[in-house]
Amino acid sequence: MSQKIHVVLSGGSGSRLWPLSKKSRTKQYIPLFEGKSLFEITLANNQSLCDEVIVIGNIDNYQLSLNALQEKAASKFQIIVEAMPKNTAAAIAFAALSVQEEDLLLVTPSDHIIKNKEAYQDAVKKAFDFAEKGFLVTFGIQPTKPETGYGYIQSNGSDVVAFHEKPNQEKAQEFLIQENYLWNSGIFCFKAKVYIEELKKFRPDILEACIQVMNIKETDFLDAIETSKIPSESIDYAVMEQSQKIKVVKGMFDWSDLGSFEALYEYFTSNGAYYVQDSNLIIAESAHVELHGLENMMVIQSGDAVLVMPINQSQTVKKIYERLLKTNKKLIE
Amino acid sequence: MSQKIHVVLSGGSGSRLWPLSKKSRTKQYIPLFEGKSLFEITLANNQSLCDEVIVIGNIDNYQLSLNALQEKAASKFQIIVEAMPKNTAAAIAFAALSVQEEDLLLVTPSDHIIKNKEAYQDAVKKAFDFAEKGFLVTFGIQPTKPETGYGYIQSNGSDVVAFHEKPNQEKAQEFLIQENYLWNSGIFCFKAKVYIEELKKFRPDILEACIQVMNIKETDFLDAIETSKIPSESIDYAVMEQSQKIKVVKGMFDWSDLGSFEALYEYFTSNGAYYVQDSNLIIAESAHVELHGLENMMVIQSGDAVLVMPINQSQTVKKIYERLLKTNKKLIE
Repeated sequence: MSQKIHVVLSGGSGSRLWPLSKKSRTKQYIPLFEGKSLFEITLANNQSLCDEVIVIGNIDNYQLSLNALQEKAASKFQIIVEAMPKNTAAAIAFAALSVQEEDLLLVTPSDHIIKNKEAYQDAVKKAFDFAEKGFLVTFGIQPTKPETGYGYIQSNGSDVVAFHEKPNQEKAQEFLIQENYLWNSGIFCFKAKVYIEELKKFRPDILEACIQVMNIKETDFLDAIETSKIPSESIDYAVMEQSQKIKVVKGMFDWSDLGSFEALYEYFTSNGAYYVQDSNLIIAESAHVELHGLENMMVIQSGDAVLVMPINQSQTVKKIYERLLKTNKKLIE
Repeated sequence: MSQKIHVVLSGGSGSRLWPLSKKSRTKQYIPLFEGKSLFEITLANNQSLCDEVIVIGNIDNYQLSLNALQEKAASKFQIIVEAMPKNTAAAIAFAALSVQEEDLLLVTPSDHIIKNKEAYQDAVKKAFDFAEKGFLVTFGIQPTKPETGYGYIQSNGSDVVAFHEKPNQEKAQEFLIQENYLWNSGIFCFKAKVYIEELKKFRPDILEACIQVMNIKETDFLDAIETSKIPSESIDYAVMEQSQKIKVVKGMFDWSDLGSFEALYEYFTSNGAYYVQDSNLIIAESAHVELHGLENMMVIQSGDAVLVMPINQSQTVKKIYERLLKTNKKLIE
């Protein structure tokens, strides 16, 4: 009998939420949500929906993933440790090649937050139905603001009209008004066999290279030399934007990729203001922070690092991270 | 032969420069000046001028004072540890009662900064001459701005016309224009005998209580029960403002009591900008601070505490300290 497999994509550089995130603890492993991490919350959200978990991760987060999976202890799981990042087309192929061909894969990021779990579960059930019928399903989220940081799916009911890159402000405003433009959530659902067939059709080079890697796999850790031969491509480019077998399921759940401190601030402001003091965001892991006479400011402390800046400049954090990578590496490790 | 004694007053609550200053390390012991503390700098500034050092301190700073004195190792020294603070009239009496009556005392705070050491030494030499002749000498500093945080000495040459309390802004402006109003620096010079005589004349109760304490003194540590009987009064109120034997020496040296982060910022801005980044003050003892997109801001870190606020609100620090004293005492210990 076919199984439902939760495929958790776990990567990232940890640059946008520095100093909370760093090389050794990317965004999804920070215990920001009542002591839970996004990785743990992702496992919990999908536990009742799937029979098994496969985490596609890397060497830096292997132990963190293992700890979280063992603590859950409810599902069968495996971890596949990539030797280097090769983007989502390959990562998902590793999962698809690790299961029975009739198994259904529910592929999710591990670093996004979902509110309204019932709406999420409804969407997943719809997706499994489509997947059972041989479709590749992508999840689109109804936009709530003219976001320029996400890709969009132009939909017509459950059919996809087109995928759109991150838009400019004007286009994002247009998309928001026309209600059939959905945020591309990075959540997918399909039968393992169908993904492999479609990848073979559009990018046989990626599939072949992935098969080579999986053929010589002996432990959780994939071979570096064979991995280096895999073309790096996203599932969107490689498969979803090419295939004729695409369906979109509209998720009516609140969703955020928490891709910046500004997004984190918005989330905490609307979901219990634990880290919000007046209009400031204060997240301190071990320090006591006194902030006075300031608004719209963030103070973030982790270990030896303290970051202070206006919340609305949080896109700069990535640049700071990149500078420190060159000048003061131990602060980002 | 009479000796010249440097009497160092070392007290303070540590509230204004929190978290750098705290109960266990008040302002004068923070190594902020190329690794040196104000206490060490005070000792160094007066070393060539005096034969001996007496520190009037408290139990919390005893070891810090001892370390600094032993490191200097150039002068004879003693430490008198007050059982509780009883203000400057008593503290100076303890010193005067510990030396020969002909000895000359140069009494200084330990938490002020002096630039232009030659001008300071010139002023001290003048003061010793007056002291030798039986005068009580106070040091007045030529104001450089309409400061409302200091008391003023109205002078006429080396004579004192009157002492003035901390003025309002308008008065401070007036004082600045009339060049004979000087900042009251808290530096004094006199013969031990003369101070005791004048204290006996104006506040015999203080002198008697101090004599009681010194009579039973066996170690560096003064008796608490006897000390508790001493009236608490400043040397200004008790003696200087009463006596007819007062002279003022005009100090032409740059001087600051560094009584707030704003004063510290001004000092560092004009004396090498080690802790100044753009227009911000960043002093971090062990953390790495990244500050972006902000001006006129201060970030101060020590141990587990981080303070973030606009520099010009630094008078609020004392209130924060007082709140923490009640709510989170370990942060100020």
